[in-house]
This record gives sequence, structure tokens and C-alpha cells, in this order.
Amino acid sequence: MRTQVAIVGAGPAGLVLARMLELQGIDSVVLESRSREYVEKRTRAGILEQPTVDVVHELGIGDRLAAEGMAHDGFHLRFDRTTHRFDFHSLVGGHATVYPQQKLVADLIAARVSSGLPILFGAFVKGIDTATGRVTYERDGHVHELDADIVAGCDGFHGVARTAIPTALRRDRSRSYPFSWLGILANSTPVSDEGMYCAHENGLSVHSMRGPAVTRQYLQVPEGTDLADWPDDRIWDELAVRSESHDGAPLDRGEIVDRSLAPLRSFVSETMSHERLFLLGDAAHIVPPTGAKGLNLAVSDAAVLSHALGRWFATGARDALDAYAATCLPRIWAAQLFSWTLTTTLHRMSDDPLDARLRFARLRRWVESEAERTALGEVYLGLPFPSRWSHRWNH
Amino acid sequence: MRTQVAIVGAGPAGLVLARMLELQGIDSVVLESRSREYVEKRTRAGILEQPTVDVVHELGIGDRLAAEGMAHDGFHLRFDRTTHRFDFHSLVGGHATVYPQQKLVADLIAARVSSGLPILFGAFVKGIDTATGRVTYERDGHVHELDADIVAGCDGFHGVARTAIPTALRRDRSRSYPFSWLGILANSTPVSDEGMYCAHENGLSVHSMRGPAVTRQYLQVPEGTDLADWPDDRIWDELAVRSESHDGAPLDRGEIVDRSLAPLRSFVSETMSHERLFLLGDAAHIVPPTGAKGLNLAVSDAAVLSHALGRWFATGARDALDAYAATCLPRIWAAQLFSWTLTTTLHRMSDDPLDARLRFARLRRWVESEAERTALGEVYLGLPFPSRWSHRWNH
Repeated sequence: MRTQVAIVGAGPAGLVLARMLELQGIDSVVLESRSREYVEKRTRAGILEQPTVDVVHELGIGDRLAAEGMAHDGFHLRFDRTTHRFDFHSLVGGHATVYPQQKLVADLIAARVSSGLPILFGAFVKGIDTATGRVTYERDGHVHELDADIVAGCDGFHGVARTAIPTALRRDRSRSYPFSWLGILANSTPVSDEGMYCAHENGLSVHSMRGPAVTRQYLQVPEGTDLADWPDDRIWDELAVRSESHDGAPLDRGEIVDRSLAPLRSFVSETMSHERLFLLGDAAHIVPPTGAKGLNLAVSDAAVLSHALGRWFATGARDALDAYAATCLPRIWAAQLFSWTLTTTLHRMSDDPLDARLRFARLRRWVESEAERTALGEVYLGLPFPSRWSHRWNH
Repeated sequence: MRTQVAIVGAGPAGLVLARMLELQGIDSVVLESRSREYVEKRTRAGILEQPTVDVVHELGIGDRLAAEGMAHDGFHLRFDRTTHRFDFHSLVGGHATVYPQQKLVADLIAARVSSGLPILFGAFVKGIDTATGRVTYERDGHVHELDADIVAGCDGFHGVARTAIPTALRRDRSRSYPFSWLGILANSTPVSDEGMYCAHENGLSVHSMRGPAVTRQYLQVPEGTDLADWPDDRIWDELAVRSESHDGAPLDRGEIVDRSLAPLRSFVSETMSHERLFLLGDAAHIVPPTGAKGLNLAVSDAAVLSHALGRWFATGARDALDAYAATCLPRIWAAQLFSWTLTTTLHRMSDDPLDARLRFARLRRWVESEAERTALGEVYLGLPFPSRWSHRWNH
């Protein structure tokens, strides 16, 4: 089989890229190891920046987003038992939108299927030849080859695409944090219709809603934590301690229907391409969940690569393609900085009281200074993408 | 000898406090271990925030400041070979003023002498009894006692006042940095009439002017650096490398007339008072020089204590005095946060490339976002003091 662009992975990065290429008349084949059902139910991020929302509409797949997405203008921040609302919309304009990632994925798959374009589920990529663009994959017990001009690695942090780049050429920047997020899904009343971060001396708690009586909540816990050490009562007690306030309702406790544990990591593969292979989204970088930048970076990467490929296929000019990493990286590092700042401010970072004092000093500055909140809001609602996704709009 | 307030140390904290007390009709005695000549020549900070300038004028000692001080609206920042000017005045209003600390000290001493009020040079404090307010000092070979209602510890980081607080009651927060500043005074042409920070991959260089043909410049060097390893040529070479740009004149080299090495430290004694003893300025906290907050924090502390003492002596109400540390600390931590942020952004912090990327991402955000610069400028030009210095103005 032959195509112009082989897309490895049907997450947001791969599916958005595929749609962008389709609208530019570029052929692609999407290979996804999981089933369609699995990826359409995989719970992940849920906050779309304004530039991401704009792109979704430009791609013609925004009807359900418009109907079901909820405008999201900022978050509540609680510390020292007091609640503050950061309304970034009123400071910088624009809106973020709450819309679960799996819905966006489902919308993109539906559009692709409706266009009759190839998307192969259950296709396990075994090898990527970066020099020739040949992708070897296994499906239904058979080995297949897909030859492409370009291979887009969109298969996430644990995927195979990044490992196709020789180790000697990789420039990986990585930081782990000494804590994880213990997350629960519960049948309980949300504290507010916007998300709330509680920065407590014990550590962070996060409170978000997934429905009128469904909440998703998180606790900062030490790395190496065992879920077995956290029975329901202990989870609720600690959520209650960290979210205690003099100006809010007491935490509603309910049935915990799901629980999970996730480490936090900052990671950037600065080598974002090698020969015919290009990395997008989580395959190239990971942000801690604080600030919800992951999905949006994936769409931003896709826009840059789509533009560069459109230009290359249309004119033969390689300049934008050669500049792919250089174009993406400043925005990636701005998002990393934002996520790192939010993470180190909201979490208990160490037992050093000086860390805690600097952390609470920054929280107070955010509350007291409109300029500080505006600067935060610019990144929270979304810095402009580095380029438009279609080569017809700019170069 | 008896007085209302014994002031240990004739630096800015002690002298400003003495003047504030004088104008409120409160007696004080200033004890200083050095000679008048020494303290009037001791080179230290030189950037006064707008609130500090306002207080100097309110204290009636601002004539020379008005004549010789130079309005200072921000700084130049150079990185990636490009120079940016941060004009904080245009963003937040107000001005900082360049005026050497030793001139302010001389102005304050002249005023005190002119008022005929006691200031004893060459007086070495040997002991402070925090319960009784008795200060024991040695002068001209004799031991003296000074009995006071209040003792103001203004004798700097290495002074004796802080050590009069029992160790068990001290809450010291401290951080050192893995580098020092190698400073030179040189007969050379300044790069600009405002200070310039150069954030280079090798580390920070700082370029400031002390006159039309006199410069004070600094290099970040590893901690434990030996000045003997830095002959003139090496200093100039490294200053040139770090300040190289495509938009500025080459660095002017001249005769180096003085050189020094200073460690950087962040320190706060959160226990700022004990019984009759109160700590002010460097005796209570140290900031790294980046951002020039030290002198201004000393004046801010003096204002809070002056106000509280004015109220206590006039009415007997101890509330403001009891709240001294709680009143000072939020502004101190805001300044610590600012100094820490500036320090960690401008210096090479480690060999980890991720540190460097976050650092340069923050530099770019400062350049690209007016809100980021405004937030910086608010603190650079000076957050409001926590209280007025005279109890007659507020309580």
C-alpha cells in the first residue's frame, strides 16, 4: 500500500492532522493499534484552548462541540481557606471550552469514515524506516507494509515512533515530579461549574465536574503511593481537608466509581523529526496535567506540520518542513513553562518552608495583581498557534 | 543612659527608623560599630523604589536625592544576541531612582547630627537583653549600658541582634545559590545609561553605570571561585561573550579599579521580634542582588515599625507592634519571590538543558507579553508599603 502520509496513532494529533491533510487534498492512512470503541471511550483531557476550538470549526467537525461544549473562562483557586475566581476571559478575551477529548476523537473518526478515507484499527506498527518512509505493521495476524512520503508519529509518549529516531540523534529533556495524582470519578455534587484548584499545605486537590452529579477530583499523593492505602474515607477526608474554606459549601461525598494513579512528568523530545519521520503531540512532549495543555499542543503541532506538508506537496518547497521543530518548539516551551509554573505553585514541592513561602507568595501575587492574572490567562486560554494549518493561508 | 528606642546599626534601616521616630517625637539612640567615614563610603545598593523615594521626601531629607538621583524606569535585557528594553514606568507609572545607598546614609547622618540627636560611632554592641531592653556596648575601651523600651536590630545579616533571639524561637528560611557575583568597578564607557542584564548560556552578566566613564559590572561565576583565577583579560573576555549582540556597541574595556566576589543568598528570619527586640532590614532578611530589593525592604520594615511604635507610645495600643512581623512578611516574601524569579531566570542554574529551556521560555514571555512585563514592573518599581510610617496617618 502507498500513501503520501502515514499517520501512526488515532489520537487527537493523528486524527486532526489527517483531517487537515484531507482538506488540503493530501492522501493519508491512519494506523491505530487499539479498537475504534477503545479510543472513542479513552478518557483524557477536556479543556480546549480558543485556538484549538477555532481549528476544530475550520476543519468542519465542530457541530457537536458547538452544541455540547461549555465555555470555560478560567478556574477557581482556593488557598488559605478563601476562594478566588480567575476569569481569564474578562482579562484577555477568548474562551476555552470544556469538551472531553474522547468526544473530539469520535467526531474526527466519524468525519474520516464519512469521507471514506482509510483508518485501520488494530494495526500494530512494528517498524518505521525513517529513510524510505516504509511503515511495517501487523493486523489480523498478518504483516503489512505501508509506503509513505512522510510518516507522522502520533502514537503518544509510550509509542514506537519516537524510538525510530537513533538514540544518538535524540535530544530528550525530561523532569519527573516527586508526586502523583490520585484521581477519582464519583457520583457527587460538584463544588462549582468551573474547575477548582485548592493549594493546601498538604498539597494540591483538584475538583472538576463531569456532569450535574458527577465529579472528577484529584489529590496530590507522594510518588510510589499504593491505591490500596487509600480507601474511600481517606480520599474524601483528604479532599475535604484540602478544599476546606470559609466561603464555600462543604464537600459533597458520594460513590467513587473509578480511581486511578498517574505520575506527573515534563518531557520534550527536541528532535522532533528525522528524515521522513515527524513527531507530534505526546509522542514528542508531555506536560503535567496542571493547566491542561497536552491536547492543545497536539493540535498546534498538527497545524504546523499540516501547513508545512501542504506547502511541500504543492510547491516542492521544503523550508517549512525543515523548520518544523524550530517552529513548534517555542510554543511547546511556553506551554511547558506555564505547566511547570502552575505545577510548582499549586503542589507541595518539598518539606522546605522556603519553597512553601515562595509558593504562597506567588498565589497571593496572582490574586492581587491583574497583570499577573492576565499573563496567566494569555497562556491558559491559548497562545496563538505558530502557523495556520493550510498552506493556502500563509507560508 | 536611657532612651525609648535603642537602634543597633547605622545603615539605611536604622537611620531611616531613627528619622521616622524623630519626626514622631520619639527618642532614640543609634549605635554603630563602624566609623562615620566608613559607613558614608560603604558601597551597596543604588536603586530606590518609588515608595522609598516618597518616604525619603516625607522625611525631609530628599534635597540631594532630588538633585542628584536619576529616574530609573526599568532595565535592558539582552539574550539571544538581542537587546530589549523593559520600560516599567510606561506600563505601571512611578519611577525608581538611581541613588547610591552611601549617599542616602550620609544624608540621614547629616540630618541626625543637625538635629543634635545621639548617634554613636565605634560602639560595639556586646549584648542585648530582649526582656529588659538593656543594650550593653563597648566604646573607646569602656563598657556602657543603654536602657530602652524597644531595641531595633538593624545591624545586618552578620550582626549580633538576630542572635539575641533564642535559637529555639527562630524560624530561619534560607537558600544559597550555586554561584557568586564577581563584581568590578572600571573606568570604561557604560553600554547604556540604564542597567542591563545579559542572560547568556554561560550565565549572567550585569552592566551598570556609576558615571559617564565609570561602570560597575558583574559576572556570574561558580561558587568557590578564586579571584586569582580571573585576571583582567579573562573578566573582559567573559563580559564580552555574555553581552555580545547584533544591535549594540562592542563592550568598552578599561582599567579595573576594584573587584569583589559576593555569594548570593535568599534568607528570611520569620521570627522578626522577640520581647523588646525587633529586627529590620538585612538583620531579618537577605535577597540576592538581582532586582535590587534589599535597601527598599529595609525602608519598608522601618515604616511598619515606626508606625507601630508611634501608635504604642502615643496610645499604649500594642496591636500594631504585635503584628509587626505579620505586617512585614507578605511584602518581604513578595520581594523574595521577585528576586528568586529574576535570579533563577537570569542565571545559569544547572547543567540540565530543561532548566535552560524553561529559563529562556520565561525570558521570551517577558519580551512578548505586556502583561508579564507589567507584573514584573509592579514589583520592580515597588509594591506599596504595608503601612505609613507615622501613626498619625493611619492605624
